[in-house]
Amino acid sequence: MVGCCSPRVMIIITEPGATPEQIENIVARVHEFGLEAEVSREGARVVVGVAGAERMAREKPLAAMPGVEAVVAATKPYKLAAREARGESSTVDICGLSIGGDSAVALICGPCSVESREQMLSIARTLKDSGARMLRGGAFKPRTSPYSFQGLREEGLRFLAEARNETGLPVITEVMDPRDLPIVERYADCLQIGSRNMHNFSLLREVGRSHLPVLLKRGFGATINEFILSAEYILKEGNTNLLLCERGIRTFETLTRYTLDLSAVPILKAKTHLPVVVDPTHAVGLRDFIPQMAIASVAAGADAIMLEVHESPACAKSDGDQALLPEVFARLVPRLRAVANAVGRDL
Amino acid sequence: MVGCCSPRVMIIITEPGATPEQIENIVARVHEFGLEAEVSREGARVVVGVAGAERMAREKPLAAMPGVEAVVAATKPYKLAAREARGESSTVDICGLSIGGDSAVALICGPCSVESREQMLSIARTLKDSGARMLRGGAFKPRTSPYSFQGLREEGLRFLAEARNETGLPVITEVMDPRDLPIVERYADCLQIGSRNMHNFSLLREVGRSHLPVLLKRGFGATINEFILSAEYILKEGNTNLLLCERGIRTFETLTRYTLDLSAVPILKAKTHLPVVVDPTHAVGLRDFIPQMAIASVAAGADAIMLEVHESPACAKSDGDQALLPEVFARLVPRLRAVANAVGRDL
Amino acid sequence: MVGCCSPRVMIIITEPGATPEQIENIVARVHEFGLEAEVSREGARVVVGVAGAERMAREKPLAAMPGVEAVVAATKPYKLAAREARGESSTVDICGLSIGGDSAVALICGPCSVESREQMLSIARTLKDSGARMLRGGAFKPRTSPYSFQGLREEGLRFLAEARNETGLPVITEVMDPRDLPIVERYADCLQIGSRNMHNFSLLREVGRSHLPVLLKRGFGATINEFILSAEYILKEGNTNLLLCERGIRTFETLTRYTLDLSAVPILKAKTHLPVVVDPTHAVGLRDFIPQMAIASVAAGADAIMLEVHESPACAKSDGDQALLPEVFARLVPRLRAVANAVGRDL
Amino acid sequence: MVGCCSPRVMIIITEPGATPEQIENIVARVHEFGLEAEVSREGARVVVGVAGAERMAREKPLAAMPGVEAVVAATKPYKLAAREARGESSTVDICGLSIGGDSAVALICGPCSVESREQMLSIARTLKDSGARMLRGGAFKPRTSPYSFQGLREEGLRFLAEARNETGLPVITEVMDPRDLPIVERYADCLQIGSRNMHNFSLLREVGRSHLPVLLKRGFGATINEFILSAEYILKEGNTNLLLCERGIRTFETLTRYTLDLSAVPILKAKTHLPVVVDPTHAVGLRDFIPQMAIASVAAGADAIMLEVHESPACAKSDGDQALLPEVFARLVPRLRAVANAVGRDL
Repeated sequence: MVGCCSPRVMIIITEPGATPEQIENIVARVHEFGLEAEVSREGARVVVGVAGAERMAREKPLAAMPGVEAVVAATKPYKLAAREARGESSTVDICGLSIGGDSAVALICGPCSVESREQMLSIARTLKDSGARMLRGGAFKPRTSPYSFQGLREEGLRFLAEARNETGLPVITEVMDPRDLPIVERYADCLQIGSRNMHNFSLLREVGRSHLPVLLKRGFGATINEFILSAEYILKEGNTNLLLCERGIRTFETLTRYTLDLSAVPILKAKTHLPVVVDPTHAVGLRDFIPQMAIASVAAGADAIMLEVHESPACAKSDGDQALLPEVFARLVPRLRAVANAVGRDL
Repeated sequence: MVGCCSPRVMIIITEPGATPEQIENIVARVHEFGLEAEVSREGARVVVGVAGAERMAREKPLAAMPGVEAVVAATKPYKLAAREARGESSTVDICGLSIGGDSAVALICGPCSVESREQMLSIARTLKDSGARMLRGGAFKPRTSPYSFQGLREEGLRFLAEARNETGLPVITEVMDPRDLPIVERYADCLQIGSRNMHNFSLLREVGRSHLPVLLKRGFGATINEFILSAEYILKEGNTNLLLCERGIRTFETLTRYTLDLSAVPILKAKTHLPVVVDPTHAVGLRDFIPQMAIASVAAGADAIMLEVHESPACAKSDGDQALLPEVFARLVPRLRAVANAVGRDL
Repeated sequence: MVGCCSPRVMIIITEPGATPEQIENIVARVHEFGLEAEVSREGARVVVGVAGAERMAREKPLAAMPGVEAVVAATKPYKLAAREARGESSTVDICGLSIGGDSAVALICGPCSVESREQMLSIARTLKDSGARMLRGGAFKPRTSPYSFQGLREEGLRFLAEARNETGLPVITEVMDPRDLPIVERYADCLQIGSRNMHNFSLLREVGRSHLPVLLKRGFGATINEFILSAEYILKEGNTNLLLCERGIRTFETLTRYTLDLSAVPILKAKTHLPVVVDPTHAVGLRDFIPQMAIASVAAGADAIMLEVHESPACAKSDGDQALLPEVFARLVPRLRAVANAVGRDL
Repeated sequence: MVGCCSPRVMIIITEPGATPEQIENIVARVHEFGLEAEVSREGARVVVGVAGAERMAREKPLAAMPGVEAVVAATKPYKLAAREARGESSTVDICGLSIGGDSAVALICGPCSVESREQMLSIARTLKDSGARMLRGGAFKPRTSPYSFQGLREEGLRFLAEARNETGLPVITEVMDPRDLPIVERYADCLQIGSRNMHNFSLLREVGRSHLPVLLKRGFGATINEFILSAEYILKEGNTNLLLCERGIRTFETLTRYTLDLSAVPILKAKTHLPVVVDPTHAVGLRDFIPQMAIASVAAGADAIMLEVHESPACAKSDGDQALLPEVFARLVPRLRAVANAVGRDL
């Protein structure tokens, strides 16, 4: 038995009708696990406080035991990502561009896919002039169909790097396979983990060991808690230059491609210390409504906005339906800045 | 057969392997319905243009016929709600308060339930001083459990009316049953149809015949298209003083009570001419994150924001977890105004 | 303070860092509500047992108080529907047809809408010959669009009654409005509450006072717990002849109209004593896959299966895409019977 | 222009108000892509038939062009998985165990994680005696939290192989990383791709080149069409020994861990030629309701059922709440067999 001041790692609440034998069994099991238990009575129920090594307690399937109604974890499942782990907000530095904390809201823009050298150089110059601070472009593309364009791979990375060298904009690109990481690291300034790989734990561990910052997109079928736990995989390997990116979740609504969950922005900022990016392009999927949702994202507290911009959306090799024209983007920037200023941020 | 200039109400596309018999049957069926058909060939497929009375065409289950791959409606399923029906945005006048179009963004505030005369008078005065323009409060409460507080009914309506008389703020309250409508109309300035009744078509028709404006909340399991069709039920009866209200949809995310679908705001404003209200309180359900989502709602283009405010949330008879304190609301108003101004609106 | 043997109605668990003042405030609030509290310490947390009138405890927003982490209800929110309320399974008698308990699995069939006298008489005879035990048909139709066929109303009820008189099959039909109840009661043998009205609490109360049995469909956006609470509304008014009907929930999958949640069948049968019906027609919405899902529903433990059957689906006034042809239904019956027998039931 | 007998790869339907210039632009774009176009008029709309190389047509974002309302693909996005690709159902042979087609329904059982040599040998013998035909057990575990047990890795594979050698049951285990494939191939008889990796396209390609059969689980956030496209990735690399596994999708219902989408079984069997497995354990997540859902899965047409069985669920290192006890499984087998027989299958 443990005194009432030992730190509890878990509290077990029994069913109203739990028998004395069931309660004895629960306590015996807790002891078997090398943990301590203190029993107190709450009327028809019994409350068992469990103390000991937390990891041990988490692994044990106490909820499955007869007589157990609920097991309440005494601590959060994530630690390194939790706001309390740092107190203040983190900022991430990408080649001199600071994202998070009180930094200016950053615009991360570019085409869905890198398609050619000319395309990248041209769009990079245009975007820089309009106010973008980072350049995006996919060289390795996760495509639902094996028959869709899969990306230019290393050639695409080279075009990206060339655009960076010419404009000074740092570049971000997706990595899909741990084996591609060395080559991506050679060209990119920031690694992107796509929504479909948020649960690819091998890949998360691998980018957790990279020297490059990482932008982790929320899985479109993942809860906010699961999203933070995937971030924890990266942080646990030592990489703390981490950005979280909300990009829409899957719901029954079919007018939009996904449903942008903007509530995730203030929640992620309250529960973690990490900067939060919003990608309205993939969430909404309909070009006409993306500017308004970019504006709402800034108002919701996003630290950066990721937007697809393409000089000729009708010719894009992927996702042409949702890319903004450069002139639409250029007209959007002052509107984003006005809202950023209204909520006390620069842009 | 119909000439190629007759207005089509529907286009039928056959399967690649549709047989001549199947195509003949499709055409025969179209004729049976008193509609006209023109057949053209698109390679392996046949396209059948259907002309005639639209309602007739909609009712007919042509998609069920052998050989049919798809039936594309030539027109939208809603007419009166469609933006094209008016061209410009509608504004709704509620006792002199104008919502929609270029009007100032309006704040509609109050407790979830009317609980007492003192409560309503006190909160009404406080809210008016802080900048609210309309007072909300439930007298008839739709509660998931029959054992929960069901509202003060007519007594609650009287308290609401008294608060209106004292402060001049128009009042909005929910009506749940067609039989309660006459009594609610006696006291209220605006009728609310709750999320759980968005598909209660009898009730929609009934408020469609009322002289009072109506705020229609989106069903938490309803698509945007279904939402607009429910609005159409009300408009069809002649009541054009109609506000649409996004209040969160049900998704797999459990941290928030519902998922606020802010994308619905620009979409509803593009597809319909009706003013759009956002209720972040019920969507988010967590007091700490509601102010941020109210701000984002204004940025997304909402014409009004509905917020629960309670002087003593811990004592509220319903939904205490999510009501804002009056002082929190008072501090929120200038932040909402700053964002409204940044997007070119007053508040 | 309350002794440890007083029956608890609620257990409050504080946050690890709750201050003594917060705990005092929580206890003070519990006392204000006329409830009793007993405080015990669980390491960094405090557990407050609350005793007193349950309804009182439920209404109180204790979870909103500073320092509170979780409030665990000591009892289920529903009572009359709970299995423990009866111990054994209920059976519902509809004009001599028994559904639930060990009764044979019943087939409830018919067209979506009543369209004509001839249609109903003809389909009723055919269905009876094939093994159907109850006849369905809509006279009041809840349609998403106000421009769709809304039903024959009283004329439709008359055709239904005539079909019942001729075949002896009891008839079930939907009621959408409390004001229509008297006329529906005059003709029908069982009342149906549709999915869109599961949260229409006025209507639930009204059919709770009817002498006729009720089939309550699950809202397509409703959880199982909410479904049981809607049943509780009906039971609370005294009508215990109640059938629960799973008919699909709304998910991101778009190939099927809804997603049939067959897990709800064993769960509803474990948590409540009420018979459970499955309607695969509306859930799947694709004629080809309905027979297989009807078979799976019987295997999952359904007490009755509701199926749309239409002699000429391509001419149906509503939902023609999903109705089975009578000959398809006739061939399905022995397959359903074989599976019913395999799980120990007649059909 | 292309004659009306050229095989169309796509049909473009314009908006009712599309201008002649818009239509000219659409046709010009089609030509730019090296495709052919034929224009026909359907009243207010124009229909453009597109002919040429299909892959080219798919890549082109024609839907983004002004004046385009809809683009209908003339062929399915998957080919190798499509039922028409083979006509008959495939069977997959795993060390002499045949799954699919008219083969007996197979039971694939074992613990969630491989925990020890004794555990695996003991459970393997017990399961074989009860009627299991394949042994499952995780050596590489995809865990939401980095602090959870991550599997015994190669040691676990050795225990699995030893259990196979002793009992003759083929073994299936999950592979999470392309770099682990060689070692997993050394021990396993069948590779499992978990739900969280259904969109891990690098991994799909890699197992597509393996000589071992693959069981692909549906992503819990993936549509049926996306699921089939992921299967297509594997088939395209040449591995045709492929099993599809439905294991629940994420919905708003929280009583069950996921929602088992049994409708996917007949749909997958109609649209593809691949065998379909159901895993009710992970879908339901509540031990009490798993047997009933296993029975329903057989009735729905599953070719195999995957079940977690653990000799001491309360001690399991992962997912103890949902594992069946061996004696519960033993009692379930004859019930599964009865239903299999009732639907014309052995087990």
